[in-house]
Amino acid sequence: MTGDEIEVRALLESRVDAAQAKDIERLMPLFTPDVVYFDAVPPMRFAGHDEVRKNFLRWFEGYEGPITLETRELTVEVGGDIAFAHMLHLDSGTRTNGAQSAILVRSTVCCRRVSGTWLITHEHISLPIDPETLRAWMPLPA
Amino acid sequence: MTGDEIEVRALLESRVDAAQAKDIERLMPLFTPDVVYFDAVPPMRFAGHDEVRKNFLRWFEGYEGPITLETRELTVEVGGDIAFAHMLHLDSGTRTNGAQSAILVRSTVCCRRVSGTWLITHEHISLPIDPETLRAWMPLPA
Repeated sequence: MTGDEIEVRALLESRVDAAQAKDIERLMPLFTPDVVYFDAVPPMRFAGHDEVRKNFLRWFEGYEGPITLETRELTVEVGGDIAFAHMLHLDSGTRTNGAQSAILVRSTVCCRRVSGTWLITHEHISLPIDPETLRAWMPLPA
Repeated sequence: MTGDEIEVRALLESRVDAAQAKDIERLMPLFTPDVVYFDAVPPMRFAGHDEVRKNFLRWFEGYEGPITLETRELTVEVGGDIAFAHMLHLDSGTRTNGAQSAILVRSTVCCRRVSGTWLITHEHISLPIDPETLRAWMPLPA
């Protein structure tokens, strides 16, 4: 593993740690000002810090306590000042209605090195959709 | 625009052209053998040429004639032998049941240069899901 790949993996860990702690002030500086974010929920895209921040706060408010994010099947590739990673996230916790929730989502993260620091400039989070029912496809996570 | 970015954009155009023509023999060589594909439909991921090829054929069979893919909001970033791009695709055509269909999807494409040739090593295609109904969110495309 190269030094660059170690740095990108550290960025991904910081991103997961900040999200698990629901710490928006630690999370937002990990994203470039021009971030374009495709989330599992509408609309089609969130662009820039203000929109992305509001959407993270909406997500955090759906959980009573911390969120657990377990990373699976992580692949990281780095070239020059650009990197991308893809993985599955098992996203679990206690929802504000008291229900226990565990959802497996797909995550793609694209990064750019800016003045020596790796930042996230694009994220894409989704679940597959059953083409017959047009409903989210949510197998029970193992 | 750098020469590398021009080459990556040409790869993306070849990918769209081959998909529109439903030409699987032209489409598959654009992907690395280790491709990991997160599609709008289940399961969570398709891995390798055999799985990705079968899934493209399934998609093609859903349309009577050609598929139209209109690319919007394209961003491309390149570094060394790695690149990523994100965009929206307006995916339209006549379904095999005769219905006209037009769906806007989010697309993230991650590329690697192998022996001088840019190839796609990861794709992520999705629609947002309404968190209340758990159904696909499909605004009428403009």
